[in-house]
Amino acid sequence: MAALRSARVLCSARVPLVQRCCVHLGQIRGFASPIKCKAAVARGVNDLRVEEVTVAPPGPREVRLKVHSNALCHTDIYTLSGQDPEGLFPSILGHEAGTVVESVGEGVTGLKPGDKVIPCYTPQCGEPDCIFCFPPRGKRTNLCPKIRGTQGNGVMPDGTSRFTDAEGKEIKHFMGCSTFSEYTVVADISCAKVSETAPLDVCSLLGCGVSTGLGAAWNTLNIEGGSSVAVFGLGAVGLSVIQGSKMRGAARIFAIDMNPKKFEMAKELGATDCVNPKDYDKPIQQVIVGMTKWGVDYTFDCTGNVEVMRAALECAHRGWGESCVVGVAAAGKEISTRPFQLVTGRKWTGTAFGGFKGRSEVPPLIDDYEAGRLKLDHYITHRFHGVEGNLQAVEALHSGDCLRAVVTY
Amino acid sequence: MAALRSARVLCSARVPLVQRCCVHLGQIRGFASPIKCKAAVARGVNDLRVEEVTVAPPGPREVRLKVHSNALCHTDIYTLSGQDPEGLFPSILGHEAGTVVESVGEGVTGLKPGDKVIPCYTPQCGEPDCIFCFPPRGKRTNLCPKIRGTQGNGVMPDGTSRFTDAEGKEIKHFMGCSTFSEYTVVADISCAKVSETAPLDVCSLLGCGVSTGLGAAWNTLNIEGGSSVAVFGLGAVGLSVIQGSKMRGAARIFAIDMNPKKFEMAKELGATDCVNPKDYDKPIQQVIVGMTKWGVDYTFDCTGNVEVMRAALECAHRGWGESCVVGVAAAGKEISTRPFQLVTGRKWTGTAFGGFKGRSEVPPLIDDYEAGRLKLDHYITHRFHGVEGNLQAVEALHSGDCLRAVVTY
Ligand SMILES: NC(=O)c1ccc[n+]([C@@H]2O[C@H](COP(=O)([O-])OP(=O)(O)OC[C@H]3O[C@@H](n4cnc5c(N)ncnc54)[C@H](O)[C@@H]3O)[C@@H](O)[C@H]2O)c1
Ligand SMILES: NC(=O)c1ccc[n+]([C@@H]2O[C@H](COP(=O)([O-])OP(=O)(O)OC[C@H]3O[C@@H](n4cnc5c(N)ncnc54)[C@H](O)[C@@H]3O)[C@@H](O)[C@H]2O)c1
Ligand SMILES: [Zn+2]
Ligand SMILES: [Zn+2]
Ligand SMILES: [Zn+2]
Ligand SMILES: [Zn+2]
Repeated sequence: MAALRSARVLCSARVPLVQRCCVHLGQIRGFASPIKCKAAVARGVNDLRVEEVTVAPPGPREVRLKVHSNALCHTDIYTLSGQDPEGLFPSILGHEAGTVVESVGEGVTGLKPGDKVIPCYTPQCGEPDCIFCFPPRGKRTNLCPKIRGTQGNGVMPDGTSRFTDAEGKEIKHFMGCSTFSEYTVVADISCAKVSETAPLDVCSLLGCGVSTGLGAAWNTLNIEGGSSVAVFGLGAVGLSVIQGSKMRGAARIFAIDMNPKKFEMAKELGATDCVNPKDYDKPIQQVIVGMTKWGVDYTFDCTGNVEVMRAALECAHRGWGESCVVGVAAAGKEISTRPFQLVTGRKWTGTAFGGFKGRSEVPPLIDDYEAGRLKLDHYITHRFHGVEGNLQAVEALHSGDCLRAVVTY
Repeated sequence: MAALRSARVLCSARVPLVQRCCVHLGQIRGFASPIKCKAAVARGVNDLRVEEVTVAPPGPREVRLKVHSNALCHTDIYTLSGQDPEGLFPSILGHEAGTVVESVGEGVTGLKPGDKVIPCYTPQCGEPDCIFCFPPRGKRTNLCPKIRGTQGNGVMPDGTSRFTDAEGKEIKHFMGCSTFSEYTVVADISCAKVSETAPLDVCSLLGCGVSTGLGAAWNTLNIEGGSSVAVFGLGAVGLSVIQGSKMRGAARIFAIDMNPKKFEMAKELGATDCVNPKDYDKPIQQVIVGMTKWGVDYTFDCTGNVEVMRAALECAHRGWGESCVVGVAAAGKEISTRPFQLVTGRKWTGTAFGGFKGRSEVPPLIDDYEAGRLKLDHYITHRFHGVEGNLQAVEALHSGDCLRAVVTY
């Protein structure tokens, strides 16, 4: 009941009346059979192989998706490289995708075969008793913990996997998405249903990096017009922070990267000052403070380097500057600073998926794209085809001039 | 002109019309002569001596104050002990005081002899072009930098000291206050004028520690009713955070200290759970998270220990918990944590003087006290008399059961 009610709250804007009572669609599960398809399986460290896998039908409150497009993210590579201490092998990586519902399991509401979906690694159970989906007065978060434990262990909420290899051995899920496969199974609470006309390649961008950057600017630091902003690291994430800041009316935007090839796009998106730390022989935080009087209103680390996180905090404005950790640091790394930086009014925070609640807040982004209010095409710098294309995408992402490599299956 | 205008903005509520035009009171300076009086002079590390000093008349925009009461703060002892790398000798310490205006310098408006004043180490120039006194939309800070440089160097804004010793040698000022002296000179923008009926011993409490704790709860973290709060360190600062949280309607208040003698007062002020880290063999942040489901909404370090600052952050609530550094760490110490703590929604910040703007926001605290809305007497655990009493106060503060030792001259 609770789930039904909340599904209505979340989806009523886009679900036609006739579908609202399609609880019975769940019975399709009875008809769904295992699907054999191709997937890029991570067998071990840097060992990505295209194989035939079997994808079981969706269980209760699960959805089987046909993956159309996948954008490669650094987190996939991080896990593939063996650096992620929680990484599991064999597994099917991939978590930025545009997909279509193939079948739904028992009890799934508001989703039917043919619906376009962005799988979200931060789910949104939307149940009234979830304090993360409905936080207490004045709070805001998207960190619904409903399936956190099992997702982290590479399995579905019932503790088992839907993927098996040619020998019938289990393959683990990844971040609740596993979109390096032609078909995948995800929890219904991870499915952001988007408009019927949404282009699925562009949807893939919104599954992680680009949404994260936009949301860091809009939700987490809530930048207002006239502000100054500094963005460290000009990959897709940092560039989308710049884009989001510019859309909010930021007056001055510092774009900082060691790779000057990144500056052209940063300027196009709204950067007013491009800074390469290599051009200076003092710490970059001093350089940025020196270019202002008292520092920058809002700063973002989009590199994952803990020294850069410190620099971003330390060039935040005395008295009220806020700094957001967006980058993901390597395991075991710690951030540090003098407490005086905080006592003199700076705030240090972070973001996961830009603070977006997946099911209710991601679909409007695609509406904005379709209406021409949000430009996204420029993030696709490379395109490949077929599940094999994920291997080429890995190469491309290492090259340094790739924002997102989108693979269409 | 700008100064005049802002003084009116700040003080019009309490300055009778007839006094508003008393710019000419500044001419009293012409008549003011040097005053010889007693002061406790910090001659060197842990070398506090009562001496006769000469206090020069106030210069332009300066005020000479007769100090009635002084409450000893740990910052005085920190500097006296030689640990403060910016500490200067010889100097006159003391920065929590209740005083009366003795004479005013040229250009001082809104203050006249006989007015009761709390000297504030965070001044408030109130000039419209000061971005810290009038921060941009949506920001908040009390860190007016107007006299920061000279105050840090132990001199008045013109670069000289008003104190000389028996041999005519200069003695430095301290934190813009120097209230270990029967008379002192401060900048007019450091003077919070309080009601005519304000008790000056209680006023001394509001010059630093107690205001800091109240303001950390009210201004910096802006605690709302029903919240959970954890306070590490139950000195006057920590206890006033508890008091401020309770006044805001916090539902659960954890009070944490290694000294269990502190728990009784904490409970009286509103603590619901008193926790001694020594009673557990796991890190205190784990203990506190274990007593809740996901951590505590608002947490405060009031110890100055960087490990405690980390613990306070790490027991803040997943998704939205905010942690405030109130304690002042020893020179060179750094705070650290895993960035994951921030990425999962915690915010780390700090406070200086509880975010109170001295001239406009401290006087209402005394009004609250006089109206019975704010209890303060319990912070005075020790009383001494005469400037000599400051030496006894130092002993008392080291004893461990002292909140504030108030010395009346
Ligand atoms: N918090 C989240 O929810 C979330 C979501 C997605 C991605 N991320 C993280 O965001 C970060 C950025 O992702 P991306 O896809 O844009 O990565 P990217 O590798 O494409 O971009 C990083 C950029 O940082 C630059 N850089 C590296 N070191 C630098 C330094 N010391 N100073 C300045 N610039 C430096 C690089 O040249 C590069 O342009 C990654 O750490 C990723 O894991 C976090
Ligand atoms: N930010 C500001 O503007 C500001 C203003 C005033 C004071 N302060 C600072 O606030 C701090 C507290 O001031 P106070 O006057 O209350 O000091 P205090 O010494 O009276 O109180 C500190 C308390 O912390 C407890 N403590 C010490 N180590 C601890 C630990 N590891 N775990 C738990 N408790 C521990 C002590 O037992 C003591 O009760 C000091 O560092 C002071 O310098 C800051
Ligand atoms: Zn939830
Ligand atoms: Zn990602
Ligand atoms: Zn000012
Ligand atoms: Zn103090």
